[in-house]
Amino acid sequence: MKLATLRDGTPDGTLVVVSTDLRRAVKATSVAASLLAALESWDRSEPRLRDLAKALSGGPVSGELEFTQATVGPPLPRTWQWLDGSAFHSHGALMQRAFKHAPVDAVQTRPLMYQGGSDDFLGPRDDMPLPSEADGIDFEAELAVVVDRVGMGTSAAAALEHVKLVMLANDASLRSHALPEKKTGFGWIHAKPATSFSPVAVTPDELGPAWKDGRVHLPMRVSWNGRAFGHPHAGEMGFGFHELIAHAAYSRNLSAGTVIGSGTISNESYRTVGSACIAERRAIEIEDGGHAVTEYMRFGDRVRIEMLDANGNTLFGAIDQRMVPARR
Amino acid sequence: MKLATLRDGTPDGTLVVVSTDLRRAVKATSVAASLLAALESWDRSEPRLRDLAKALSGGPVSGELEFTQATVGPPLPRTWQWLDGSAFHSHGALMQRAFKHAPVDAVQTRPLMYQGGSDDFLGPRDDMPLPSEADGIDFEAELAVVVDRVGMGTSAAAALEHVKLVMLANDASLRSHALPEKKTGFGWIHAKPATSFSPVAVTPDELGPAWKDGRVHLPMRVSWNGRAFGHPHAGEMGFGFHELIAHAAYSRNLSAGTVIGSGTISNESYRTVGSACIAERRAIEIEDGGHAVTEYMRFGDRVRIEMLDANGNTLFGAIDQRMVPARR
Repeated sequence: MKLATLRDGTPDGTLVVVSTDLRRAVKATSVAASLLAALESWDRSEPRLRDLAKALSGGPVSGELEFTQATVGPPLPRTWQWLDGSAFHSHGALMQRAFKHAPVDAVQTRPLMYQGGSDDFLGPRDDMPLPSEADGIDFEAELAVVVDRVGMGTSAAAALEHVKLVMLANDASLRSHALPEKKTGFGWIHAKPATSFSPVAVTPDELGPAWKDGRVHLPMRVSWNGRAFGHPHAGEMGFGFHELIAHAAYSRNLSAGTVIGSGTISNESYRTVGSACIAERRAIEIEDGGHAVTEYMRFGDRVRIEMLDANGNTLFGAIDQRMVPARR
Repeated sequence: MKLATLRDGTPDGTLVVVSTDLRRAVKATSVAASLLAALESWDRSEPRLRDLAKALSGGPVSGELEFTQATVGPPLPRTWQWLDGSAFHSHGALMQRAFKHAPVDAVQTRPLMYQGGSDDFLGPRDDMPLPSEADGIDFEAELAVVVDRVGMGTSAAAALEHVKLVMLANDASLRSHALPEKKTGFGWIHAKPATSFSPVAVTPDELGPAWKDGRVHLPMRVSWNGRAFGHPHAGEMGFGFHELIAHAAYSRNLSAGTVIGSGTISNESYRTVGSACIAERRAIEIEDGGHAVTEYMRFGDRVRIEMLDANGNTLFGAIDQRMVPARR
């Protein structure tokens, strides 16, 4: 099942069920006012949403809409919590070596995670308004899952069944602020503008055998201004999403609708598969030649983030967005 | 004007206007379904809430309720964003010296701020469920403000008018996790369980001349198991709330209902006024005698946090809560 949110002038938008090929949709307002509301009563809403999905896959349905990735909002325009991991070890190790970050204890056994803004997400084709090119504008291609309510102390084994939806994310960073804020230990405020999500969120079963061990075993395709930038494989995630969820829930309950991110997708074979963020390419350049060559994004630049199934069909639709100056 | 939220089985509760002496209340459901909803349309809801407050102050009103701090929820049971500063310089400096934290650049000119969970706040008299006494359970007495929508790039000067409400907070910490998580640079997940808030949130005018320069110029009274622990003066805040808000809004919009915290209240004269968290007392003990004597909280321990006006009347009511083991 694939779900999306149409813009309707309200903060949470209108929930629709989308066909597998992302061409057709049907409103699900009879089930829930919004995706967030659906997640808050998932046990009741899921079977009814699946009924709609089944009808849609069977042929034309009453009230059917053409689905257009160009205008859709993020699946969750806002939610109660966004916790982003950094679960690809090759990314952390490379960044640490190149940018001389302080080493982190137990990085192979204890997930890294920060909390970001969840009140103002961007849609897949929205321009991303930012304060300044001088901030070092970077994209970060990630996977993210949405959970229903997870009680404090839930184990990793029990956490897997709380994964209700999977999405792609562009967790953009302002790199000029990232290291100074990291050094404070307090996490990122200036370095983390609004995160963008893919046109649709999909239930794990849509991924077929690619969903395994709390990971999505497919490559992420990233291009920058129309040129291929990287296609690292997301199956190399050092922690499964279930482990990230259990980490997040150690001393807190997670409300339904909480989004958990993977961190920038990265592979040990970064020299052949490329990267999912510019900082990682710069780190490779520093390792190779002593200094970074690739500059960060300029206003007007575009990033495209997409994941295809084994047959070459888009699973989530594409994030494809431009960086623009914020209006002051 | 003083506002509170009664528990009614819904996630956001029922908004009430409370009398200045915290004895009487009247439901404001005719104005807004919840405090969060009121904040999302504050220009329209504020005058109508003030009408209710004025009627309540004039004598008995229809549908009047007895207000009881013992059962009230937090003013905002959940909201879209909770950003907590660390704006009392004496606290940071003392912690850094005693616990050998890495020094932070520009700490006098750039506020420290982390994002915490905002989906599951606790009421002022709720037990606080926590995983383990071994985690180093500490209270932190703070002030917090609630804003309406703040656009990206809002200046500190313009931010002051966005402060709509002021509350007290117990931003409890699990100290055994605080330093390891700080060292990652990613901020706090395990170290920050749910935050608790005072029985009422008040408009700044309720504070009279004590509200000045984006600060509350009154002492915070903290007691632990019935014994006075500290009464540091909140006017010594190194950054005003307007400066914290502007810092938060550099690269993001803040949704209406965003809560901004001051961090643990602390004074340079900590040896005479005491502290608003146990870690600070331990830091003083380390400075004095080389090692900490005071242990962190045990299950069953209580903390009480309150602020009185110049006449000795409670302004926000009291946070008075017990630490308890989480049910697993």
